[in-house]
Amino acid sequence: MSPEEFRAFGRQVVDWIADYYAGVEKHPVRSQVRPGEVRSQLPAHPPEQGEPFERVLSDLDAVLMPGVTHWQHPNFFAYFPANATGPSILGDLLSSGLGVQGMVWATSPACTELETVVVDWMAELLGLPEHFRTDAVGGGVIQDSASSAALVACLAALQRVSDGQVASRGITRRHTLYVSAHTHSSLERAARMVGIGADNVRIVDVDPDSLGMDPKHLDALIAEDLAAGAVPTLVCATIGTTSTTAIDPVREVGGVCRARGVWLHVDAAYAGVAAVCPELRWINDGVAEFADSYCTNAHKWLLTNFDCSLLWMADRRSMIDALSILPEYLRNPATASGEVIDYRDWQVPLGRRFRALKLWSVLRWYGAEGLREHIRTTVGLAQEFAGWVRDDPRFELLEPHPLGLVCFRPLFPELSTGDANDRVYRLMESLNESGELYLTHTKVGGRTLLRLAVGSPQTERRHVLAAWKRIQEAVG
Amino acid sequence: MSPEEFRAFGRQVVDWIADYYAGVEKHPVRSQVRPGEVRSQLPAHPPEQGEPFERVLSDLDAVLMPGVTHWQHPNFFAYFPANATGPSILGDLLSSGLGVQGMVWATSPACTELETVVVDWMAELLGLPEHFRTDAVGGGVIQDSASSAALVACLAALQRVSDGQVASRGITRRHTLYVSAHTHSSLERAARMVGIGADNVRIVDVDPDSLGMDPKHLDALIAEDLAAGAVPTLVCATIGTTSTTAIDPVREVGGVCRARGVWLHVDAAYAGVAAVCPELRWINDGVAEFADSYCTNAHKWLLTNFDCSLLWMADRRSMIDALSILPEYLRNPATASGEVIDYRDWQVPLGRRFRALKLWSVLRWYGAEGLREHIRTTVGLAQEFAGWVRDDPRFELLEPHPLGLVCFRPLFPELSTGDANDRVYRLMESLNESGELYLTHTKVGGRTLLRLAVGSPQTERRHVLAAWKRIQEAVG
Repeated sequence: MSPEEFRAFGRQVVDWIADYYAGVEKHPVRSQVRPGEVRSQLPAHPPEQGEPFERVLSDLDAVLMPGVTHWQHPNFFAYFPANATGPSILGDLLSSGLGVQGMVWATSPACTELETVVVDWMAELLGLPEHFRTDAVGGGVIQDSASSAALVACLAALQRVSDGQVASRGITRRHTLYVSAHTHSSLERAARMVGIGADNVRIVDVDPDSLGMDPKHLDALIAEDLAAGAVPTLVCATIGTTSTTAIDPVREVGGVCRARGVWLHVDAAYAGVAAVCPELRWINDGVAEFADSYCTNAHKWLLTNFDCSLLWMADRRSMIDALSILPEYLRNPATASGEVIDYRDWQVPLGRRFRALKLWSVLRWYGAEGLREHIRTTVGLAQEFAGWVRDDPRFELLEPHPLGLVCFRPLFPELSTGDANDRVYRLMESLNESGELYLTHTKVGGRTLLRLAVGSPQTERRHVLAAWKRIQEAVG
Repeated sequence: MSPEEFRAFGRQVVDWIADYYAGVEKHPVRSQVRPGEVRSQLPAHPPEQGEPFERVLSDLDAVLMPGVTHWQHPNFFAYFPANATGPSILGDLLSSGLGVQGMVWATSPACTELETVVVDWMAELLGLPEHFRTDAVGGGVIQDSASSAALVACLAALQRVSDGQVASRGITRRHTLYVSAHTHSSLERAARMVGIGADNVRIVDVDPDSLGMDPKHLDALIAEDLAAGAVPTLVCATIGTTSTTAIDPVREVGGVCRARGVWLHVDAAYAGVAAVCPELRWINDGVAEFADSYCTNAHKWLLTNFDCSLLWMADRRSMIDALSILPEYLRNPATASGEVIDYRDWQVPLGRRFRALKLWSVLRWYGAEGLREHIRTTVGLAQEFAGWVRDDPRFELLEPHPLGLVCFRPLFPELSTGDANDRVYRLMESLNESGELYLTHTKVGGRTLLRLAVGSPQTERRHVLAAWKRIQEAVG
């Protein structure tokens, strides 16, 4: 494709996306297709001859779009938001266009240095501690996801606790990892991937009201494991659980970790970015003093499209020691000088895209003010929704709900818990099948709850209100 | 950013990229900046107020571009190619624009189903075996990189060899992994990450001429490890090593693996895509019969921008069993039905972009014919270059060089091996510093070799010829 063809088709694609956002509300939020429906409309064999680019766009409309669930739809209240925004899309486009591979500094210095700048900017914007900055002993890096960040944190923790023995000799002792029942499944998955094993993931009790991890039970479990000869390796405290945005008491959990010499990873994948607002910075209480690693996703709620997960280390050495290998074909004078960062040593893959461009573009377009306004607006809408739920006696509201997620349930007082759970799930499915809105669910204390997450820049008050009316109607 | 603003700025970005490709030759290939030079020109603090998008573009030109190494430059002969092309960039743009998150089928069915279609298409285009297809027991998936693919293969191998015990109880025995000195460093890295440990990575001898793995030595090492009570877990055979594109004898290595019950992972990250050309399909000899997993990168030589690494499994069950966890908030009727694929169980992260769009766009724009032409053209240029080297008595040419990479060295017969190595490295550095071309190096048998990889659609015969003239001049 020549530059002039690219110019012409590129404009068509830009127009397609602009039109998509202008008209996104006309689509059902959740795709209505059945399994196999999209695939059955695509050719079984690849084309032998090249085709005009227009055919890609016409098949996108005719075949693929019915199979798309619209994460950017204003009525998408499912999971957590995955914001895509203009400046982010364009930053990503520049990254694709430049096509650089930033595995080491030398393969594109700007890719590395802009990343250092934007993660340091983010640390400042979120009020994270000075020692997370790259000029100190810490440092931040863009990962693809909080799952990969958790994996990197586990590897750094194993490196530190074993003094490098795990990297060289492998796992030779029983290592243990600590989560609550509300910790994201990526931690158990990381434990499986690094060779700790799911059976060695210990489930710490939570406070029945706050759903936060119980530091006393954590300490008791660690003591028990130590007595049994295991090596307590990592505790994950969550700021804003996926299920309900519960917040573990990081300060108290951190105190236990410090006393016991266990790595504290803080998973603030969804909620951490809320700290751009000073009035929400309390969520990070204890992080500065106790976190060995900290993760939050710009690609959820902070207007930057997937993938852009931010991972900071309080001290980067364990991570680099765990992940660094230098084969001959990657040797270069800049790496040898020790004056540069090679982010390949900070992540699972070797190759890396120029992801900093999209975050840079977002930070400059919105400015700190714009980011705060987005968080405040969406938190405000969620709080207003929570008020409506609280005021309707047919519903139960789960407290607290300090951020953009509200968990609630129709009461169905005439039904047993099991039957009520089924009814709530079916009600949600019928709402989702309508295409008018998209909710997901969770279970807390054996009861099925609906989750409504507000976080899209497309979502206005009228959308949240319409969703509430629709939910009320469905309950009848 | 409103849809209309996006339309306007989007056109500016598209024009910027079109102009970039039209004028890419005016840039020095390798960035000339010193460590810290880019960073020092960027503000230390993030902007408080939002800025006009034009400022992102003007700073891109003024501050970032001098720090960019141009992987899409026709004189980029370093590492392996990392092709970005118009249809690929536009497919990626559509993915960013739609902003869907394809972690499970239900979160965007088209994201999953198009991926299934394009990886099956790729299996057909490369002549890979029927059992790699998704409708059989195997299946392909797009990963971010061959490193992550190797990690997934290791986890699947551990799952199979331990009958699931590693996932539940962690590593409790000594597992061993087999590579040659020419295997990519990502395999040792994967062994470290999964808890096998670097010390348990066994280095199999290579044939001194072909640099391919010695199956007899492999068998002897496995026997030795078994006798010592270890659990031989995975052998990595490489088709096209990073150093020299050497090819391990997959059929013979596979025979050993089959007899010993060890997982065979085939890393064809760079070379595998060459099999779009029937006359190059010999490189995959033995894969159909013996490979448990197979990886090749569309994002190197196949006109698709990073990241787009293709991983196939001969039998997907071990991988899914190793990686699957189903928390409540990801339960949905489609997953429960068992009728759909949830690719989150096929990879390290949970979240995933709609990466199939860019590969689909590339396959349709070029067609099988266009892909073959690209491979043939670039192999042809590399072979012509090799001929020039062979005909110049001042140079030594490393044989064989069947693909797009040529390894060679100026002889400097008057110097000792060590001094000649230094001289070759300095010569490369001076060429790279000139900005006129970009080469990398490797070491084989103690001797430093230059690597010239031809693979960009921008590279024409005149560029390769100019590079050769420049190298000849430098040798003097």
